[in-house]
Amino acid sequence: MTTSRDIARAAGVSQTTVSRVLQDHPNVKPETRERVLNVLREMRYVPNAMARAMVTKKTGTIGVVVEKITNPFYPELLEALHRELAAANRRVILWNSGEAGEPSAIEAIRQGVVDGVIFTTARAESSALREAVSRETPAVLVNRYIKEIECDWVTTDNVNGGRTVAEYLIGCGHKRIGLISGIPGVSTGGDREVAFRRALDDRGMKLDENLCRSGDFSHHSGYKAMLELLKLPEPPSAVFCVNDLTAFGALDAARALNVTVPDDIWVIGSDDIDMASWEAFDLTTVRQPIPEMARVAVDILLRRIADPARPLERYVFSGELIIRGSTAHLRPE
Amino acid sequence: MTTSRDIARAAGVSQTTVSRVLQDHPNVKPETRERVLNVLREMRYVPNAMARAMVTKKTGTIGVVVEKITNPFYPELLEALHRELAAANRRVILWNSGEAGEPSAIEAIRQGVVDGVIFTTARAESSALREAVSRETPAVLVNRYIKEIECDWVTTDNVNGGRTVAEYLIGCGHKRIGLISGIPGVSTGGDREVAFRRALDDRGMKLDENLCRSGDFSHHSGYKAMLELLKLPEPPSAVFCVNDLTAFGALDAARALNVTVPDDIWVIGSDDIDMASWEAFDLTTVRQPIPEMARVAVDILLRRIADPARPLERYVFSGELIIRGSTAHLRPE
Repeated sequence: MTTSRDIARAAGVSQTTVSRVLQDHPNVKPETRERVLNVLREMRYVPNAMARAMVTKKTGTIGVVVEKITNPFYPELLEALHRELAAANRRVILWNSGEAGEPSAIEAIRQGVVDGVIFTTARAESSALREAVSRETPAVLVNRYIKEIECDWVTTDNVNGGRTVAEYLIGCGHKRIGLISGIPGVSTGGDREVAFRRALDDRGMKLDENLCRSGDFSHHSGYKAMLELLKLPEPPSAVFCVNDLTAFGALDAARALNVTVPDDIWVIGSDDIDMASWEAFDLTTVRQPIPEMARVAVDILLRRIADPARPLERYVFSGELIIRGSTAHLRPE
Repeated sequence: MTTSRDIARAAGVSQTTVSRVLQDHPNVKPETRERVLNVLREMRYVPNAMARAMVTKKTGTIGVVVEKITNPFYPELLEALHRELAAANRRVILWNSGEAGEPSAIEAIRQGVVDGVIFTTARAESSALREAVSRETPAVLVNRYIKEIECDWVTTDNVNGGRTVAEYLIGCGHKRIGLISGIPGVSTGGDREVAFRRALDDRGMKLDENLCRSGDFSHHSGYKAMLELLKLPEPPSAVFCVNDLTAFGALDAARALNVTVPDDIWVIGSDDIDMASWEAFDLTTVRQPIPEMARVAVDILLRRIADPARPLERYVFSGELIIRGSTAHLRPE
């Protein structure tokens, strides 16, 4: 491999001068700079990343932790994060924590392989997150927050989202309202569920527990839960699913039983991933502004890396109800 | 940060002894080993990854290049690769080449940031791939091959897949057969299309170019192409889409025009991603064994890293026609 010493020798200058040219230091004569640059090009010199990381204590690499990459919400978020990080000239190390990635993330944080980490799926009990925070590795949560941890985060106002769905359904006259919830301890689904329940309560329409089922954010769990709801003697007239993928499963269960949406039952999701607008689903849902969330998260993380001591930043986007064909295209009263 | 010198001092031994304990070298007395291990634990010593990489010339990191992470085929493949690599104690750096990741991948290969690269989306003109091969970086193509490049690859027999679909449609009596093809230069779609056309030719049923449309493997392109085909005075009775995502778009176009599948038109895809079995699509398709492909690809790559000079390995899985509700559940004659 070509070293800066080889370059210095070939250009007839000192190694210090080569370093200055590489760092765009002003203290180099234009003709010298030109000569060194020519030699660099001829000899195809590339600074060694590991050697540079040893000196600068920066790797240029950001870790991204995702729980379940096959949930299509995550590829959309990951693509947006990737675009922002590539624009900032950062590489991405990916951990799919559902696939035993978490120990690997912890090890990399300990070893200084990454400059910072974006957690897109952290639960309160996440050991990788506690590790990151305890070691003062810059970390940002996206689409999640954990009250007990001192950490920057970017999320959507899921409380408002859950309330908006409840008010929409009540406003449209629904009396038998169902719910398919997510994994306990995950803030997105939890906030949506709690706010949805509270808003119904507030209007004197307490949720009937017979019309509630637990899911795990997957298509399969939505499918299974909806089959059960539809086989009840008196099924619900509308079902809120705490994420879109669960709602796709619910719609598929209705299809399997020849139950027509929205004539026989309304289905509402949350996230507004790209597939929600496909003809097959045409799903009413609460939008998360994924590209904007990614942009803000990367901004915050890069600021945190530059200045670990700066005050915490917490950014909450508002969600928007997107009405499509899985409800009867009615606006709330 | 704690160094091995600090450990040596605290344990009252030489740095050489600390190194020997860390490397499990036999030449250390049991009581000395015990003492050093206790100090290592007390001082929470973690070997520095960058320093180690400088010495071993191995980073423990594998690059994975994906063109379009939001095409659900790729998260499935990525999850499988990730599982295999995590089991082999390797980290994953991800490049989404559609999002300007390719220059970043090239830079990392040059700088020795990764020990090897898995290309899941390389076209003949891929500059990152040429770079990897010219620098003798271990590289494996998955789900792709490029004839002109000397490189290991793992793929499915797409020629056989295209032929199987053609023979199935002819066997079921279809006379007006359509095709929605992929991006030129990508081996998967290209092989499937060429073999499909040739098999029809061989049976004296040359494909009518009026029933062919070009897509780009996306839902949107399948949707648009299918709308055009269905608005023809005489639409096809069956359409082969060179990947599942295109077929989902085609099915959604049929849905939008109230054309019934399979009564009015049959739709066939290729890949058999998880969503193909969802009620919404219930797609007849040619299966690629994604988990097995990932396992073999990681095996080959690790062997290549261990021995760059070993002979090329090329592994071709056979595809299988999975018949579902988007065709009339008939077996070919």
